[in-house]
Amino acid sequence: MKKVGVAILGLGVVGGGTYKMLTEHREFYQQTQEIDIVVENVLERDKQKALALGVQESKIASNIAEICSNPDVDIVIEVMGGVEPARTFVLSALNAGKSVVTSNKELFCKYNHELEKAARKNNCGLFYEASCVGGVPVIRALLDNLQGNKVLSMMGIINGTTNYILTKMTDEGASYEEVLKDAQKLGYAEANPTADVEGYDAAYKLSILSSLAFHTKIPFGKIHREGITKITPADIQYGKQLGYVLKLLAIGKNTEDGIEVRVHPTYIKKSHPLASVNDSYNAVYITGDCVEDVMLYGRGAGAMPTASAIVGDVIYCATHPTFRYSTFKNTAEADPAVKFIDNFKSAYYIRLDAHDKTGVLAKVSSIFSRHNISVAQMIQEDDGKEDGHVPLVFITHMTKEKSVMKAVDDINATSEIAEVVSVIRVVS
Amino acid sequence: MKKVGVAILGLGVVGGGTYKMLTEHREFYQQTQEIDIVVENVLERDKQKALALGVQESKIASNIAEICSNPDVDIVIEVMGGVEPARTFVLSALNAGKSVVTSNKELFCKYNHELEKAARKNNCGLFYEASCVGGVPVIRALLDNLQGNKVLSMMGIINGTTNYILTKMTDEGASYEEVLKDAQKLGYAEANPTADVEGYDAAYKLSILSSLAFHTKIPFGKIHREGITKITPADIQYGKQLGYVLKLLAIGKNTEDGIEVRVHPTYIKKSHPLASVNDSYNAVYITGDCVEDVMLYGRGAGAMPTASAIVGDVIYCATHPTFRYSTFKNTAEADPAVKFIDNFKSAYYIRLDAHDKTGVLAKVSSIFSRHNISVAQMIQEDDGKEDGHVPLVFITHMTKEKSVMKAVDDINATSEIAEVVSVIRVVS
Repeated sequence: MKKVGVAILGLGVVGGGTYKMLTEHREFYQQTQEIDIVVENVLERDKQKALALGVQESKIASNIAEICSNPDVDIVIEVMGGVEPARTFVLSALNAGKSVVTSNKELFCKYNHELEKAARKNNCGLFYEASCVGGVPVIRALLDNLQGNKVLSMMGIINGTTNYILTKMTDEGASYEEVLKDAQKLGYAEANPTADVEGYDAAYKLSILSSLAFHTKIPFGKIHREGITKITPADIQYGKQLGYVLKLLAIGKNTEDGIEVRVHPTYIKKSHPLASVNDSYNAVYITGDCVEDVMLYGRGAGAMPTASAIVGDVIYCATHPTFRYSTFKNTAEADPAVKFIDNFKSAYYIRLDAHDKTGVLAKVSSIFSRHNISVAQMIQEDDGKEDGHVPLVFITHMTKEKSVMKAVDDINATSEIAEVVSVIRVVS
Repeated sequence: MKKVGVAILGLGVVGGGTYKMLTEHREFYQQTQEIDIVVENVLERDKQKALALGVQESKIASNIAEICSNPDVDIVIEVMGGVEPARTFVLSALNAGKSVVTSNKELFCKYNHELEKAARKNNCGLFYEASCVGGVPVIRALLDNLQGNKVLSMMGIINGTTNYILTKMTDEGASYEEVLKDAQKLGYAEANPTADVEGYDAAYKLSILSSLAFHTKIPFGKIHREGITKITPADIQYGKQLGYVLKLLAIGKNTEDGIEVRVHPTYIKKSHPLASVNDSYNAVYITGDCVEDVMLYGRGAGAMPTASAIVGDVIYCATHPTFRYSTFKNTAEADPAVKFIDNFKSAYYIRLDAHDKTGVLAKVSSIFSRHNISVAQMIQEDDGKEDGHVPLVFITHMTKEKSVMKAVDDINATSEIAEVVSVIRVVS
């Protein structure tokens, strides 16, 4: 039976899950895959953590060089996260002729060109299914199943932390701050939640997924990114009233006019399959010119679901020895021939604080009409206007981003009669 | 650029879609996959059909031998359906050294061992993603993404026709017969709908999918199969009242006691992700020991979604020249060491026609208790009992199939007081 030696860099949540999965399923892989996967090394500063997992002391490497020079290691699993030292370690492994399986979205998003170049040069495998949406099989679906399609669009709920927070805010009417605190207590959000709640994590993944879907490098910097920190229970409530659910969506579109890529809070119709993806579940909804709509749903994070993606790659790498992934165009920057659209079209939810003066609706309507914005739905409530302030909520028809931003400026310039409280994009 | 010659056997709905996709996307595949896919031959008795699609007359083969001896054909696409002559043609192609891509679930379910043997002997590829659930990427997900997991269970809505019929019956309260007629008019059901409505099509697919998931051959004959022809609007209505949606589910479970595989109408809780898979959409819900729950959703049939799966396989086959699929154990029959469970456990919906005599509930309750069946929910309605007949609906707790069947016999033996109208399994 073919023996496959692996080394795991980092025994955090995902690394620990991967170690557990590989060791507990060793006999299962002998039976079903006819390979014997053995963890030959781990790299982990916290020795006690490694020992507690059951790693033999002799297998704990002191540095990356030890792993790179270990002839028993065929595949290096990088689950450290962050750019450095992960980048240096992965490059060392590839240059030592080891194949690499990584779950590191930031690294792969920013340095894929460098890693792929090294992998090709050394004829090594480079696999990254675990970098996007945990156990949901989306990267291989794009590469090996949907590759005959021109992908028209993708929409994803691809960050577990923010989906957990928005689901709780929706179900319980609680504020962002309250739910974030709970999520941190439960381990669903990190002590410094910025990467998740400001949409960086989702944007790294969107960069990788849209590069694969659209067959061209989509750099992180081309992605319009907004987080969920300004979302209020009131906005979620008004959305509900209008038949929408609020999600942090990652959206990629490939149109005749160019590519648009964006991560922002978005209302989606309650009947859309993505609307019922709740808690820490994730899903990617892909529309191809032939396959029509496909949705891939599952656990986007967590120790064992992410380990599942890593181990899937390890087995694939070991059982396809002559195949080394070709990925998206091997460049650091976008192809200059590709046009990116920043003045994209969308429907918009606009909530105003109107100072209840005669003529406010007429004034706002005339601003909308000046910017070619037409209104599809409106809520005006008379409750709670003791202080003379009335909420006014509009959903617009499809319109251009920049027109809405100009209209918002114009409304805010009439601050004696109305101010814009929130602007949220809407997908129907 | 590498040239890849293909031949298409059968230009029906799927064959026509495949021809269209390959020819219209030829330049796209040159750009994105660096291969030039050329349709070198088609095999289609109806010459006019081929010409109408734009096939050059010189490319229309008169028989399979012509295709097998054409050195320009690398890959044969079989989209004829049915066992013969598809089986003979596929074997001829493999024996002539051509790789094969097929969408034929019946053929692959029944003769996979023979086809795989021929593929191995001739070092040819054999791909069948399109045989199960159209454009939904489920086979490669099981083989290449989730293969590190012990799959505990799968539940699928894997037949478009029956899901369309049940959705319409649910939405419109119409009878099975009415909706079937409409579906036939719209092309969603065939003139002879048996393969779909009696669950054969779903059982072929379940045989293939569960063989992959459980790493052992699951023959068609081991699958408990019931269709939807006896479903009434009343059952759908009572299910709704109790919070359930009725679907034709294909279920596979791998437990310590053995494997259970079954296709039958099933109530599922309204909140389950499968409950909102409607119309001709399909989905497979897979639970693995590490990945937890994954759902793959999309168009399970139709010309272009199925063509998407076929073309995905063609590209995969062409770009992975040294890789030939290993599939499930290459046998015709089940491994005698594997135990199949026919006395499985489930919750049950049992509807009685009670003749409204004193003591009917006591009598039925005593029968249930004799067979260790306990009741979780009950509906007793007093409406419409002018003729002395009252519907009585029970949902049981988890119980054994055979206990329920015995209880049904015992109740029917008391035909002067009550009769069983329907028995439908329930998944919570």
